[in-house]
Amino acid sequence: MKELNLQKVFTLIEPGPVIMITTAYKGKYNVMTISWHMVMDFTPRFALSTGPWNYSFEALSKTKECVIAIPTIALLDKTVNVGTCSGSDIDKFAEFELTPLKADTVKAPLIKECYANIECKVVDYITRHAIFVLDAQKAWINERLKKDPIFHFRGDGTFVADGKTYKRRAKMRNKLPAGV
Amino acid sequence: MKELNLQKVFTLIEPGPVIMITTAYKGKYNVMTISWHMVMDFTPRFALSTGPWNYSFEALSKTKECVIAIPTIALLDKTVNVGTCSGSDIDKFAEFELTPLKADTVKAPLIKECYANIECKVVDYITRHAIFVLDAQKAWINERLKKDPIFHFRGDGTFVADGKTYKRRAKMRNKLPAGV
Repeated sequence: MKELNLQKVFTLIEPGPVIMITTAYKGKYNVMTISWHMVMDFTPRFALSTGPWNYSFEALSKTKECVIAIPTIALLDKTVNVGTCSGSDIDKFAEFELTPLKADTVKAPLIKECYANIECKVVDYITRHAIFVLDAQKAWINERLKKDPIFHFRGDGTFVADGKTYKRRAKMRNKLPAGV
Repeated sequence: MKELNLQKVFTLIEPGPVIMITTAYKGKYNVMTISWHMVMDFTPRFALSTGPWNYSFEALSKTKECVIAIPTIALLDKTVNVGTCSGSDIDKFAEFELTPLKADTVKAPLIKECYANIECKVVDYITRHAIFVLDAQKAWINERLKKDPIFHFRGDGTFVADGKTYKRRAKMRNKLPAGV
């Protein structure tokens, strides 16, 4: 993996891809899937919308560290699997055969199989709106994966990459609100 | 345009498309381009990252209303044009031939040429992080445009729709930070 200039890190998040967030807490790694995130500045600062209902919340709040890992479409099913179960029950890295790698500036792991990994510190939590504010510390790109597309979530159980739709509604049933 | 069930509105924003934000203030319509936004809940509530440095900030703050208009790739150049000039200088609707339509619940206009329009009220502004919190009131879909792709911004002057890259770096020079 090659280091990416911090000035360019927002270009990874701005397109709005599905991402995974890794944490390290109480001697355990965990990982979640989310697409509720946004660029906040060119600095590089990001917002992440999640709260205490999420198992990763405690790890994020207590350690104030995480890694944003960006998968390509080759990892679609692993990413969906990560997003449809809880780290309270299982070791997701082992279960879904994701390889944790040591980061430089945080204890949360990079994910070897991902296209990009962004080491982040939590700089704030906006309690009344359940928003984490993250500052990137260091970022890594796997240039061999550069041509594989990142992917987007439509919120209804379908994903899109390069104009192709991938249906995962059945698998995601428990994560979709009524009426969607 | 057909009304879209409010429960489904987050499915328009979750993929992370480039959007436009319209406002009506002091007898004038204005419109800006942004892709710093995220879903906050299934309710439908959205966050928008912008502050006083943006001309639309005053209109958003004072009127507490806006419309999120989602263009398809057919509107790429108009969207870039909207994003690279200021409403302090020109009437962007006239200049770029966008058609304002009356909304139902807010004074800010819908954009006729867009695929989707979401009428929103500003419910909060998080000053220390320059984040507007918006609640959708009503949403509209132009079903004839359903097959045209929405598009994503890479943050570096290039856009992507259905896997195809559109370069607009020269046009966006004044909006790109150094080193990107």
